[in-house]
Amino acid sequence: MSGYSVIPVAGIGEVVPGDDVAALVLTALEASGLVLLNGDVVVVTHKIVSKAEGRLRPAVDDADYRSIIEEEAAAVVRRRGALMITQTRHGFICANAGVDRSNVPGDQAVLLPLDPDASAHGIRRKLEAACGVGLGVVVTDTFGRAWRRGLVDVAIGVSGVDAIADLRGTTDMQGRVLDVTEVAVVDEIAAAADLAMGKASGVPVVVIRGLGLAPGEGRASDLVRPAAEDMFR
Amino acid sequence: MSGYSVIPVAGIGEVVPGDDVAALVLTALEASGLVLLNGDVVVVTHKIVSKAEGRLRPAVDDADYRSIIEEEAAAVVRRRGALMITQTRHGFICANAGVDRSNVPGDQAVLLPLDPDASAHGIRRKLEAACGVGLGVVVTDTFGRAWRRGLVDVAIGVSGVDAIADLRGTTDMQGRVLDVTEVAVVDEIAAAADLAMGKASGVPVVVIRGLGLAPGEGRASDLVRPAAEDMFR
Repeated sequence: MSGYSVIPVAGIGEVVPGDDVAALVLTALEASGLVLLNGDVVVVTHKIVSKAEGRLRPAVDDADYRSIIEEEAAAVVRRRGALMITQTRHGFICANAGVDRSNVPGDQAVLLPLDPDASAHGIRRKLEAACGVGLGVVVTDTFGRAWRRGLVDVAIGVSGVDAIADLRGTTDMQGRVLDVTEVAVVDEIAAAADLAMGKASGVPVVVIRGLGLAPGEGRASDLVRPAAEDMFR
Repeated sequence: MSGYSVIPVAGIGEVVPGDDVAALVLTALEASGLVLLNGDVVVVTHKIVSKAEGRLRPAVDDADYRSIIEEEAAAVVRRRGALMITQTRHGFICANAGVDRSNVPGDQAVLLPLDPDASAHGIRRKLEAACGVGLGVVVTDTFGRAWRRGLVDVAIGVSGVDAIADLRGTTDMQGRVLDVTEVAVVDEIAAAADLAMGKASGVPVVVIRGLGLAPGEGRASDLVRPAAEDMFR
């Protein structure tokens, strides 16, 4: 393969409830002269998806914020001081049920989309119809990790590509069968996208071009480890 | 920013103990006509670093493999069937103490480098001296996650860039102070690199160009969460 490129899509302004994310992306692409190609993966930070879907709640003070988190969380896995490690209704384990107050105007908190896989799917269908190409769409959020400092972006919604590349049963360069090689491709895509988004630069969408992924039916829910496999709940 | 690109470095063959990884990279770059530029980040999968450093042990059967893991692990965090979740001497939490049998010739297991940050530093110094530019070097391994299925590449050795971009105290687009925004930039770099490496395609080195990172003194050991902060040991 000849490598790939990560292209930020500038010019998407503040998103408000009722906005059409795909339409905003298309307008920004047109303004920047960027044409989507077959096989491109469009990565969208969930914050603009949540805002467009009206997933906002008033949060004037810390008490409001905490009660929203408790309402959003399906379960609290750990609690230390103000930090809650939670399981969301989608099954994701993350801090504060994914409820966030940064990059939100006024005294509001932004919640995760109700069904981020469906959000990704809707955006993909509209972009594909408008551009006449096959795409992947990944919706991302920023998660911590149990044993590594610092946050990384991960996929919380997926459409058009596999979430996990299952290389089990294929062979390595030595002809040895690879026994445990399920790569979380869409999480690596989310991380790659975040490097071009920056945290405060206001670029909520990037296009990843040249990955050469086959079309797939993956969903971010494929990434949720079943409780029976979980050794650290 | 105008985006970035991820360029695989083809043509690095089987690496054996005593090889000079930087020299192998320079030869492969020259053969492919690729010239390193100031600010490039060179990402190297640890497997070729470990092989060059002679971090190989005979492992004819599963019993050999298990005894190497037990020797390499500083602590076993969880054990389920044949799977051991371990803490390595470096402080990383990962399966099987990072000991691996795929992509290794003959009946051998490959261990993690003794000091991957030092390995990264040595490679960087040689590449910088040969090319007359400032670089980052990241050495990677493939880790699982507690609550997400699938593996992702992470940084286990770093030189020339910060491991974590500390955005605490900066403001978002709304002027609100970002309270928790330490981004594990080098883990996102490792993930981005893996998308171009593939698992079985034999590309152990990629160049990431255009990230625009400032030079830094980071180390992968910065990513190890201190025991006092660990809620899931």
